Amino acid sequence: MTLPMTPTITAIERSPDRGRGLARDMRVRWALEEVGQPYEVRVVSFGAMKEPPHRVLHPFGQIPTYEEGDLALFESGAIVFHIAERRAGLLPQDANARARAIAWMFAALNTVEPPIIERGFAFLVERDKPWHAERLPMLEERVRVRLAELSSRLGTADWLDGAFSAGDLLMVTVLRRLSGQGIVEKYGNLAAYVTRGEARPAYRRAFDAQLAVFAATLPTS
Amino acid sequence: MTLPMTPTITAIERSPDRGRGLARDMRVRWALEEVGQPYEVRVVSFGAMKEPPHRVLHPFGQIPTYEEGDLALFESGAIVFHIAERRAGLLPQDANARARAIAWMFAALNTVEPPIIERGFAFLVERDKPWHAERLPMLEERVRVRLAELSSRLGTADWLDGAFSAGDLLMVTVLRRLSGQGIVEKYGNLAAYVTRGEARPAYRRAFDAQLAVFAATLPTS
Repeated sequence: MTLPMTPTITAIERSPDRGRGLARDMRVRWALEEVGQPYEVRVVSFGAMKEPPHRVLHPFGQIPTYEEGDLALFESGAIVFHIAERRAGLLPQDANARARAIAWMFAALNTVEPPIIERGFAFLVERDKPWHAERLPMLEERVRVRLAELSSRLGTADWLDGAFSAGDLLMVTVLRRLSGQGIVEKYGNLAAYVTRGEARPAYRRAFDAQLAVFAATLPTS
Repeated sequence: MTLPMTPTITAIERSPDRGRGLARDMRVRWALEEVGQPYEVRVVSFGAMKEPPHRVLHPFGQIPTYEEGDLALFESGAIVFHIAERRAGLLPQDANARARAIAWMFAALNTVEPPIIERGFAFLVERDKPWHAERLPMLEERVRVRLAELSSRLGTADWLDGAFSAGDLLMVTVLRRLSGQGIVEKYGNLAAYVTRGEARPAYRRAFDAQLAVFAATLPTS
């Protein structure tokens, strides 16, 4: 039985990342695990995401969404923030520290993620184009500039501003998009930062849960 | 005399938009005007933005920043949110409506803005490349998909979710990046939405203030 206020999130069926936790439901799962909030998951297909019933929840036809009683939310950043505001563990109590943690949430999504997405997008749709080889260094340079700046700010700290926060949670998920590609690895402190995030018990629980969704869609032998 | 808690924001000297209000300080100015918060402006040059003293405030070497007593913030979305949280006028009181307005803030910056920035970026750095003509339709299609979805959700409403909010403020500034290019204009309700935002007295005051900064840098005749 589902208690009335247990939130339900959506995740994608057969994620193209094959369970590597790169889809945006991972962020929300991780946040829910950090604050100890049980949740339900409704899996939607690529096709269903673009259909009217899902678009009522998400105008841009994506996942994740978040439903809790009368409230329906979209945008992973907003959902993580909603979770962080309601339960302890993801935002500092001190007002100034809280505002700075929120600044890192926006920085992760609006400054660091876009060039990383663009680079991935070029691999996806332009890999066979004659210009791909010439564009790639430019795309990588844009990513490197942001990583160098982030690395410089992080320095020897464990997290971006004091204790682990929703800002770190989003930033780690953004940097994970580059995992195993030898890019983040050039910045020792950033690589360690990602590893530190992935080592959190809440991260592990969230990762295993999203992997189970992918594994369930594999044909049984 | 400056009262201790009057916030100071940074804006760019000789903005490349030539005072059209497309730089990100416009968002913060508009938010401050909406809530009736007086503020100070410190103008920084392109070069100074990338130097250590400014990077203490903004790790990514950009504008705007926000300083208020002991607090220093960066990221326009986070600054607008900070302003909206502290003074009435930019977020609904109802908890669910407030969460949805925040979702629109993230949607503006993480879903709608990135493809618009990419298209602008291609014009800036790839216009003379042999592949530009072939890439452009793809870049425009990505923008069009988002605008069509946004137009569909907005429908005949004045604002995205009830009363004007910080979500509308950010979305209007994002759409304004396409002003006069015949793209937003294809969606009558979105064009009217932008015009509605620009007609707000707080918008006008903010626009005039940023234009005055640009005008002050022009050589006198």
